Amino acid sequence: MSIKGNVVVGQSGGPTAVINNSLVGVIQEAKEHAEIGDILGMSHGIAGILNQELIDLRQESDQTLARLRNTPASALGTVRYKVTDEDYERILEVFRAYDVRYFFYIGGNDSADTTHKIHLLAASRGYELHAIAVPKTVDNDLAETDHCPGYGSAARFVATAIRDTAYDTAAMGASSPIKFMEVMGRHAGWLTAAAALAKEHPDDAPHLIYMPEHGVTIEQVLEDVKYWYDRLGHCVVAVSEGLRGPNGESLSVRGGAGEVDAFGHERLGGIVEVLEEAVNEAYGLRARYDKPGYLQRSFGSLQSSVDRQEAYEVGRAAVRAALAGESGKMISLIREPGPRYRSTTGLVELDKVANHERMMPTAFINEAGNGVTEAFLAYARPLIGEPLPPYARLAGKLVPKRPSK
Amino acid sequence: MSIKGNVVVGQSGGPTAVINNSLVGVIQEAKEHAEIGDILGMSHGIAGILNQELIDLRQESDQTLARLRNTPASALGTVRYKVTDEDYERILEVFRAYDVRYFFYIGGNDSADTTHKIHLLAASRGYELHAIAVPKTVDNDLAETDHCPGYGSAARFVATAIRDTAYDTAAMGASSPIKFMEVMGRHAGWLTAAAALAKEHPDDAPHLIYMPEHGVTIEQVLEDVKYWYDRLGHCVVAVSEGLRGPNGESLSVRGGAGEVDAFGHERLGGIVEVLEEAVNEAYGLRARYDKPGYLQRSFGSLQSSVDRQEAYEVGRAAVRAALAGESGKMISLIREPGPRYRSTTGLVELDKVANHERMMPTAFINEAGNGVTEAFLAYARPLIGEPLPPYARLAGKLVPKRPSK
Repeated sequence: MSIKGNVVVGQSGGPTAVINNSLVGVIQEAKEHAEIGDILGMSHGIAGILNQELIDLRQESDQTLARLRNTPASALGTVRYKVTDEDYERILEVFRAYDVRYFFYIGGNDSADTTHKIHLLAASRGYELHAIAVPKTVDNDLAETDHCPGYGSAARFVATAIRDTAYDTAAMGASSPIKFMEVMGRHAGWLTAAAALAKEHPDDAPHLIYMPEHGVTIEQVLEDVKYWYDRLGHCVVAVSEGLRGPNGESLSVRGGAGEVDAFGHERLGGIVEVLEEAVNEAYGLRARYDKPGYLQRSFGSLQSSVDRQEAYEVGRAAVRAALAGESGKMISLIREPGPRYRSTTGLVELDKVANHERMMPTAFINEAGNGVTEAFLAYARPLIGEPLPPYARLAGKLVPKRPSK
Repeated sequence: MSIKGNVVVGQSGGPTAVINNSLVGVIQEAKEHAEIGDILGMSHGIAGILNQELIDLRQESDQTLARLRNTPASALGTVRYKVTDEDYERILEVFRAYDVRYFFYIGGNDSADTTHKIHLLAASRGYELHAIAVPKTVDNDLAETDHCPGYGSAARFVATAIRDTAYDTAAMGASSPIKFMEVMGRHAGWLTAAAALAKEHPDDAPHLIYMPEHGVTIEQVLEDVKYWYDRLGHCVVAVSEGLRGPNGESLSVRGGAGEVDAFGHERLGGIVEVLEEAVNEAYGLRARYDKPGYLQRSFGSLQSSVDRQEAYEVGRAAVRAALAGESGKMISLIREPGPRYRSTTGLVELDKVANHERMMPTAFINEAGNGVTEAFLAYARPLIGEPLPPYARLAGKLVPKRPSK
């Protein structure tokens, strides 16, 4: 028999297009268990506990819950805040005051770390608490899980966006033949790599993909771009915002400025401006760029059906695990063997996840460091849901030239 | 009886999400008329005539034509090239050589000008040619038409994108409360204004909309942003890439550099970087921006159903008008009176369209110059097709605070 008590659930870190599915999964599963009393939502993550801003989620209507599954970004509000040692003590006090016995934190590796520390503190004080992390990140960089909820939808957006901007670039021809798209991902190239899912034929865009795992020089990019421009008359490139040189040095305008966020992460971006200028200067070709920015992680119209369902299931699984007595764990996604894609959920120790970043393995990046392998495509393709809708190109049969005066 | 002869059709200027619908409209209507022989597509606009790169469009399959209706960007290829006087002579020679009697040019005001000049030249030489312009522009700045094919889909993208990035911004709370989105439109604010279609409630984003028709100072933007930030804790702003000061002076980084394109248009952009920095400096608030760039005009997944159909109909109407003996005209869209949106096509003189730009009327911009009016919303709402899918926010009823140690 599980302990009776209340649930607290929160969302942390950057939003995704499907993160509310995990929240709805937690709420709906929790409602099915008699041991659970209140279902409380943390307003803006840990801040909601520290400030005692807790939302009564049992009062949300069925219609709201249904629509939340289509609604991008964190409905509870999120936060970027480094929790201090005193904060942890305070969190435990609040949990005691509200008789919280079940804690679910939907987030990435910083959130896994927070969940882990809360779990350890409660255990050391003999307070029974079941703390489970629910994975979420468009960066897909959590350890110990096949992939992360949020990634499939962001990947679908990036593949869609690069395909559409590539059709635009091809149409423009000589007017502006080179296009860069800056893709999110500070250190891991998973999302940038997903641009490759736009490719059907070898000459399709993206022609080049640069991921932070494989350093590259500006000169190499220029050479690569020239190769494709000479071949096709245009070239479309996906570039990670965190792209670096061969020795890890920053290539971007802002990367060098040393601006950091609350977790000490460098604030990146600016690489596509550098590359645009480099191409213009080196070849006199008009280069252009797109910076879809936050749309990559919060574009509701392009939820992946697979991602949406998995985000929901990890929420439900977290509640079931907690009620089964687990704590200090994260729900993982496990890919089932077999020709058709299927996944199930698993449980992994939080200390193997907290503060780790899972980079793209070498087997997923081509030797030149400017594209991905078939192995990556096989890995990523099922995660974006249905194939992208079919587009057409003209067969384009030219009629013979006729003599004209 | 119409003259027997061949058709030439081309696409010019910036692509749109639905411009291929106009091409398919021309092809399918042309196929229904016995007077028409070859249906030739210009590879990359006028360049395709000058270089005699003409595509046999009768050889394109039905499946290709059907899929083209979903495919963004100009399938024939487009061009940005200022046609010279000698070019016009050459165009007429090629038309004679290929027995071209029907010329359809899908584009904006530069293309209308080209079509007009070809019409005048043919007439002055006694060569029977029926030259009709087919309207297209995401900028919605063509005169003599209620609106322009391409605008509705771009407007749907902008409204969708600002809503999604606004949910993201609201979720982030104090972490990064100010968001700017840079929207296309050199001189006319139509597309930036469309961001307002994301708004359901008065406090919904976008909270501020800045269009180039109404100059504004950086100081005014800062004050406006502060008002909304104080009220809601965040603020989401749509900004035209062509935003200018009250006296028409450039506010952006690049606008002052004097870089111009082949038509002498200034190359703009950079305004959101300026505003981001201004907000950071003035208030110490983290501002962020999105620059969706070319996605705004070529995002196939967000075609407006209305726009898609109208783009198709203007293509068909152009062929019918030419066969009825018209020339030197552009197809227009006419909004029918009545409570439910309906449009028909009309014909307007090209000299009233060529090289004119239609700005947002004063009645569509609010007095403060930082938003739109109900009249604009009534004008624009039907053009994006179905309403945006419903999202949910939590009712968010807080539970009473409990004393904790």
